[in-house]
Amino acid sequence: MEPERYLGGGVILAYKELAGRAFLERLEGRKPLFVCVIGTTETAKIPGISAAGKNPDFTDYTPPADVELLLLGRCRSISGLPVTPEGIPTPALITRSALKLADIPTFIVSGGLMIEPHVPFLDLGGSPGEDIRRGRAVKDAEKVLQRARILGEELAKAGEYLVIGESIPGGTTTALGVLLAMGVDARDKVSSSMPNNPHLLKVKTVEAGFEASRIVPGSLAQDPLRAISCVGDPVMPAFAGLVLGAAQRIPVLMAGGTQMGAILAIIKALNPSILANVAIGTTRWIISDKTSDLKGIVAQIADIPIFAADLNFGFSNFPGLRAYEMGFVKEGVGAGGAAIAAMLKSRGTLTSDRLLKEIEANYELLTKV
Amino acid sequence: MEPERYLGGGVILAYKELAGRAFLERLEGRKPLFVCVIGTTETAKIPGISAAGKNPDFTDYTPPADVELLLLGRCRSISGLPVTPEGIPTPALITRSALKLADIPTFIVSGGLMIEPHVPFLDLGGSPGEDIRRGRAVKDAEKVLQRARILGEELAKAGEYLVIGESIPGGTTTALGVLLAMGVDARDKVSSSMPNNPHLLKVKTVEAGFEASRIVPGSLAQDPLRAISCVGDPVMPAFAGLVLGAAQRIPVLMAGGTQMGAILAIIKALNPSILANVAIGTTRWIISDKTSDLKGIVAQIADIPIFAADLNFGFSNFPGLRAYEMGFVKEGVGAGGAAIAAMLKSRGTLTSDRLLKEIEANYELLTKV
Repeated sequence: MEPERYLGGGVILAYKELAGRAFLERLEGRKPLFVCVIGTTETAKIPGISAAGKNPDFTDYTPPADVELLLLGRCRSISGLPVTPEGIPTPALITRSALKLADIPTFIVSGGLMIEPHVPFLDLGGSPGEDIRRGRAVKDAEKVLQRARILGEELAKAGEYLVIGESIPGGTTTALGVLLAMGVDARDKVSSSMPNNPHLLKVKTVEAGFEASRIVPGSLAQDPLRAISCVGDPVMPAFAGLVLGAAQRIPVLMAGGTQMGAILAIIKALNPSILANVAIGTTRWIISDKTSDLKGIVAQIADIPIFAADLNFGFSNFPGLRAYEMGFVKEGVGAGGAAIAAMLKSRGTLTSDRLLKEIEANYELLTKV
Repeated sequence: MEPERYLGGGVILAYKELAGRAFLERLEGRKPLFVCVIGTTETAKIPGISAAGKNPDFTDYTPPADVELLLLGRCRSISGLPVTPEGIPTPALITRSALKLADIPTFIVSGGLMIEPHVPFLDLGGSPGEDIRRGRAVKDAEKVLQRARILGEELAKAGEYLVIGESIPGGTTTALGVLLAMGVDARDKVSSSMPNNPHLLKVKTVEAGFEASRIVPGSLAQDPLRAISCVGDPVMPAFAGLVLGAAQRIPVLMAGGTQMGAILAIIKALNPSILANVAIGTTRWIISDKTSDLKGIVAQIADIPIFAADLNFGFSNFPGLRAYEMGFVKEGVGAGGAAIAAMLKSRGTLTSDRLLKEIEANYELLTKV
């Protein structure tokens, strides 16, 4: 059966359609704040894990470059744009275009970074993440989560709802780690920025972390902070803390793909009472992806709505954008959620087509030499 | 002649009453954001310059402790509260009480710090300030100002107006430095957290900085960034950048005493077109102070309104609060502006008396052993 659609087809109600429609109606025409949580993990440097950078060592520069693009309209930490090894551009291009067109205020939060961005960012006292194979991935997860909660409470006083995205290369592997540690069967279900999803490599990486930290699948179902500390990444405590702080008061759209499954498991374990204020916003590319299963992950945790922005780059003039239709990149930097928020804020005046035009114009501008 | 009053006497229109009344009417009932800019300067450690700490070496801890109080309701960097050598408590107590009662979202911005706070803060890439007697007080003033401007633009999308306060021990001495460098006669006019304002010591300190940096009074009238770099402090570029970014779009209430004169001179030199969106909010203690002259400073720069919160601690049960009526502390951490914003947001329902009750309750709670 085809999922229901909303706002002239711009938003696909991909999971829990009835609750999803009610949730969207609470957001329509309201004023959101967009928050992008960034971090880095050494896990991204394992060859074959991440395509969020020209090569593995470049992944440290991707999150700062992404958020520079969001705030400045161009990158400062690198020249040009973050791209995959094949040259496919960052989804931050989608996010930037949506936030700009809809005039949505944007704040950057660092969970822990190797390279700091050349734009203002909120510091939570976190450190860059280690390789999860060592089993000690994140320092001070509790501290970062508590500070993020404080920040979420303040942001919730300032906006009518929150859209939270992330940029961390290697993030689906660490998500797999936390999901498995917490007893969610996410094997072969997490997404990838590559068309050929390296599931086996991700599982082996997580298993090494489990061995090093002496945990088994499901053993940390009630201890999300330890799961993060052992096999997670520094974005997780920051992202989860923001949701925990904000969703007590306002709706929160968690903007991302299968990594949102890990955040959902974490927040559910810490405060299930906020789940009625939480939904996931992603892209059609994630929903249609045959190599991953966001709904299958979420259904094991909590019945919250999933929305997808119905973006289609198939008729774009730019091969770099058409590649999104072939399974490259798919999501990231809150692209899907930002597109949904832009459509909702404009009550549908801002369509997927209009957004694509803006994305193409920005892409052309930024790749001109 | 007595100045005009507003909101049942809670707000004193201390300068430019007609324009001031129109400005306040634009804010009444609207939703502000409060931003506290913090920084440290070695200048505060010159004996006799600052009372914002038990002793000069404690001044590094005062700004982080102040903003912890704002966000958490208690300090983490120190035990108890920041106090003067006489034990008079920080004005952050006023700010916290006002922001809490009026449910005003609060963000912390660092211009450059020796000690980082245990709460989320916006990092602009700045460094702690040097002793201005060496003539090289602030690194990267231009970079910090540009980043703050970007941040101000985002904050202006999120709030209906901005209230910006500061906490930097030694800040009136650096303000004197920048004002004199820019040709504003501020000699014997800047305020002090002590009843006996050490004007001579401040002037000598500034003169040493002038000599070291080979500037003379007025020689940097057109070069505020160089004035900051030589004899300013790290709060200045952050504060000024925030105003420059936000006041293009929304009203900005600069919350502070005579230090606001230096900010005003800086922003006027960089973009005078925004001045119609700018006013100063302070306390009655600053307006009544015989040892300083805020109006006399502002009148030399730009005819913007000055408001004062009509706080009176004379009948408080607590000697530490009654000391405010004897010339101790007077202002800081945006206390006056936060009180004004709380009154305006509540359309006067929140009175000075109600605020004092909350301040006393918080003070009692925080000084209990």
